[in-house]
Amino acid sequence: MDINSLFLGPKSENEEFFRDMLQFMVNDHIGWRKYFHPDDASLPHLDEDARKEKKETLDRTREALLELAANLQVGSVPWFSPRYLGHMTTDTLMASLLGYMLTLLYNPNNCAYEASPATTPMEIEVGRQLAAMVGYDPLKAWGHITSGGTVANYEAMWIARNLRSIPFAIQKVMPGLMGEMNHWQLSNVPGPKILDLLDQVKTSGKLEEVRDASVRSLGIPAGGMGKWLVPQSKHYSWVKAADILGIGQDQLEFVKVKKDYRMDVGHLKHLIDGLINEETPVLGVVVVIGTTEEGAVDELDKVIALRQDYEKQNTWFHIHVDAAYGGYVRTAFLDENNQFLPYGQVKSQYLAQGFDESDTAWPEKSVYNAFRAMAAADSITVDPHKMGYVPYAAGAILLPDRRALDTISYFAAYVFEKEEKNPMLLGSYIMEGSKAGAVAAAVWTAHRVVSLHAGGYGKLIRNSIEGAYRFYYSLKTNPVIKILDKEYHVHCLCKPDINIVIYAFNQKGNTSLKKMNELNQKIYEKFSYRSGPVYASDYIMSKTSLSYEEYGDRPALFTHALGIPHSEWEKEQEVFVLRSCIMTPLLAQSNYSEYWNVFIASLKDKLAELA
Amino acid sequence: MDINSLFLGPKSENEEFFRDMLQFMVNDHIGWRKYFHPDDASLPHLDEDARKEKKETLDRTREALLELAANLQVGSVPWFSPRYLGHMTTDTLMASLLGYMLTLLYNPNNCAYEASPATTPMEIEVGRQLAAMVGYDPLKAWGHITSGGTVANYEAMWIARNLRSIPFAIQKVMPGLMGEMNHWQLSNVPGPKILDLLDQVKTSGKLEEVRDASVRSLGIPAGGMGKWLVPQSKHYSWVKAADILGIGQDQLEFVKVKKDYRMDVGHLKHLIDGLINEETPVLGVVVVIGTTEEGAVDELDKVIALRQDYEKQNTWFHIHVDAAYGGYVRTAFLDENNQFLPYGQVKSQYLAQGFDESDTAWPEKSVYNAFRAMAAADSITVDPHKMGYVPYAAGAILLPDRRALDTISYFAAYVFEKEEKNPMLLGSYIMEGSKAGAVAAAVWTAHRVVSLHAGGYGKLIRNSIEGAYRFYYSLKTNPVIKILDKEYHVHCLCKPDINIVIYAFNQKGNTSLKKMNELNQKIYEKFSYRSGPVYASDYIMSKTSLSYEEYGDRPALFTHALGIPHSEWEKEQEVFVLRSCIMTPLLAQSNYSEYWNVFIASLKDKLAELA
Repeated sequence: MDINSLFLGPKSENEEFFRDMLQFMVNDHIGWRKYFHPDDASLPHLDEDARKEKKETLDRTREALLELAANLQVGSVPWFSPRYLGHMTTDTLMASLLGYMLTLLYNPNNCAYEASPATTPMEIEVGRQLAAMVGYDPLKAWGHITSGGTVANYEAMWIARNLRSIPFAIQKVMPGLMGEMNHWQLSNVPGPKILDLLDQVKTSGKLEEVRDASVRSLGIPAGGMGKWLVPQSKHYSWVKAADILGIGQDQLEFVKVKKDYRMDVGHLKHLIDGLINEETPVLGVVVVIGTTEEGAVDELDKVIALRQDYEKQNTWFHIHVDAAYGGYVRTAFLDENNQFLPYGQVKSQYLAQGFDESDTAWPEKSVYNAFRAMAAADSITVDPHKMGYVPYAAGAILLPDRRALDTISYFAAYVFEKEEKNPMLLGSYIMEGSKAGAVAAAVWTAHRVVSLHAGGYGKLIRNSIEGAYRFYYSLKTNPVIKILDKEYHVHCLCKPDINIVIYAFNQKGNTSLKKMNELNQKIYEKFSYRSGPVYASDYIMSKTSLSYEEYGDRPALFTHALGIPHSEWEKEQEVFVLRSCIMTPLLAQSNYSEYWNVFIASLKDKLAELA
Repeated sequence: MDINSLFLGPKSENEEFFRDMLQFMVNDHIGWRKYFHPDDASLPHLDEDARKEKKETLDRTREALLELAANLQVGSVPWFSPRYLGHMTTDTLMASLLGYMLTLLYNPNNCAYEASPATTPMEIEVGRQLAAMVGYDPLKAWGHITSGGTVANYEAMWIARNLRSIPFAIQKVMPGLMGEMNHWQLSNVPGPKILDLLDQVKTSGKLEEVRDASVRSLGIPAGGMGKWLVPQSKHYSWVKAADILGIGQDQLEFVKVKKDYRMDVGHLKHLIDGLINEETPVLGVVVVIGTTEEGAVDELDKVIALRQDYEKQNTWFHIHVDAAYGGYVRTAFLDENNQFLPYGQVKSQYLAQGFDESDTAWPEKSVYNAFRAMAAADSITVDPHKMGYVPYAAGAILLPDRRALDTISYFAAYVFEKEEKNPMLLGSYIMEGSKAGAVAAAVWTAHRVVSLHAGGYGKLIRNSIEGAYRFYYSLKTNPVIKILDKEYHVHCLCKPDINIVIYAFNQKGNTSLKKMNELNQKIYEKFSYRSGPVYASDYIMSKTSLSYEEYGDRPALFTHALGIPHSEWEKEQEVFVLRSCIMTPLLAQSNYSEYWNVFIASLKDKLAELA
């Protein structure tokens, strides 16, 4: 696979191919229209008045599109360029982009098979592919496209919440099935066991009765349903989720992160023990594979092991993996038969792909172990519009066992064939309703061209990680930058687990955190839309801030390394940092050092302007 | 405005224009890439091995797209054709389709302004346009694009739920502000009054404390928050909403429909009086403008008047208008200055657009009054991907007063500028996160070409309604169809409020509802993907069923008109009907009678096959 042929390219290098395919697509579609009942009359010929109206209408359409084009040129971000070092985005796969555009012409709606005989099966297929990618059995699993990771996270919490209320419902409707369980025991029935019980309920024809006695009908019970534990590094969608789902944000508990910004599993255990002690159920634990801010990969394997221990003590919680960002990285560990590679082979595979020995610092064993453990999670979010390199908006939710859908499924006559047990009636199993089949087709086409193993996405993503590592090491080893009489040094938050680099600059000798924050804010402004049209920027970075409110004192270690005394951290309680998601595969190419030199030169220019 | 120039056309009549614009767009984008730092090197030239890899990669891309194209041709539905008489879909506006395709090349993400400097302002602008369309003051209102009407409905219920918990929270945090109110009084503070109180809370710097004491932090309180009333004709998203938002489906109460399938406002009053009597709060009432099944327009003006009466008795409920389908029809009543036209002028306007006097049966005064009343609703759902004629997936939620956002808004450091009060940081005010800027651009471009008044969308939609009326009258006046020795008659459920026609056939003399249902099921199968690839169908219809479970005995009137005795209705409790949403503007054209003759001929063929 030639990575440079996957994209239109930073200089539109593949424009000829792109144009050819687009022309083919349009011809194909136009023919499709013409040959549907070819004898039907065309729209009538026009008299003079109507010809004038037609011209005016087409002129107005042209003007609107010209205006749109002008707006887009001024106000779009050049994701495609290796000069873009900001958010989780880069160029999209040409196959995916063209597939999306082609499918828009047909405008299918994947809410119902009837409105999308072509693209609903693609969505089901893509769901199975992603399920296999995370290690689930695609024959038992369930997966579908959502409008993003946020909605996928909601859906996961929805399913976890409803499933955990089922034992209470069964005890009401079929008391014999649950035995003499008390509230605590009913709150701790393992998810897979609940699904087996639901099978018995179905066999007895009592499914509707049980569903009617569950949270979906009764609403959130007095006293709530337990706590939902998320790491401090959580995506903010979890805060929204707890509100939307009626659980309440007070039911969120935040697990500390370690100095590598991964969840502190020791602290997680401490929290859970405290909750068990007071008999507060743990509804679920979120483990993040690729945090939004830092790209940190939580040690999922340790959380899975922890739950095994608790299960022996008859305590259970749902484990959701928020791999919206990092999910596709798992392809780097899979061979062509979807087998998880031995650790040594992950490295040798990349040596064979042309990287030097020195480039293969990635992955650490802990990162490898975390990705391996995904197969044991109860639900997983993964976003094709992030490291799947497809256009917005495409998230996905994956479950190892599709029986869980019975806790949330619905029917509506106008979109579904009630009499059929057709698994392709998507709208009845998901949160959303109408949805663009074009998005499913875009993901499907991407997966057709870039396969979900080490030689496909694994290679592409490994290039992006390699770029991040080069950038990280360049920052780490970069000598002090001198601008006139001032000297600046830079420090990285931590070694990237995947491909996000967090860093901040400080002027040598400065001990004021406020001043340091201002410096980095100003650097950010020079490298973002803040300094004028983003198209005029030399480089584009993103930024974030690490605050006491979210991370406790954890960031103080970082400010300390930049020469800021602890008293300053205590005063400001927030550090402003620069953030580069290196999703582009282009930094890993041979001209990296030239690229870096231009970056540093531009940085010096901007620092000089600020000085 | 020439309606036939708005679409690519059933025979791709506007293909030349379409191709020209597409070529312009691609050239424009390719240039944009090339001229970003034009001196940056192109991707390196390739050695022989790499050239082979490149060819293989491009070949694989081509093959994937050919496979996709083939799948789409076999498995797509010819929405564009006037032979499509099924779901709520038809051809999409060329401007919108091209705008969507163009914007995909730039791939903006409207979650944050930083990722979409061009398209976030478009989404805000579109929100204001839609707010003005429904009669809200665009300077005070709020509107944004959702992934569909389902999510818009969730968001409305979310806002209504959180807002109604604020008085309880204020009483805890600032007891002086609420006075000595009891639970019932706190449950019935009018929404606008709550927003004024929140202003005082903000002035006192207590907003966060109050939010922390509201449902979003505490979760659903014991005993719930009251009932949510929806008509029997509701969209099923409301049933999902009550589950997802933790309210519980048991908190839904269903308002009966009258024989015109509009909400029975008398029954609504009866339900509310009963709830007041037992001091159960009414959280909200949903009024549907264009029901999904029947296209019925509930008499919103009467519900607004009813609430005014209750408000005098210190009882209040949120009124949400689910105008996902019908919302854009309001343009038919607006002049170029966004003024709601007098009733007489609505008709004369259409006479001026070339319809005959006899064609202007629409609208009934009751429909006119319902649309006029929209300005008084507390929230409105409207779907651009339905009667906005734009591609999937684009819904919208509208609020008259954007202050309500304070009850749901969130921030996340990596996407938002905390320090700025920038109203364009969409992700902090909405349910979803990442979202395609391309969708906003598609709606924006559509509105640029087809303006939101009687001469723009009004004219387009009026043509679709006219088509529905012609189809309805043709069915109504159609003589008995004879096939060999059998005779069939057809009956319509009711006169369309907008452009959906529901009808069923029965064999003369048949009194078995089961048999009649089978007949219509078979007719449906002959006119749908069920009889083979949908591309091979003569006409395409959709279907639904009206059941006792959802509608009580209301459908018995319809089966009676088809010669089915009441005892049969009581036995089957469900009638299977054919459903045609006439969104195409093409049936209103001069060749309608020819069209109808071909339809009837095809119907006779199919009935003969069945006989």
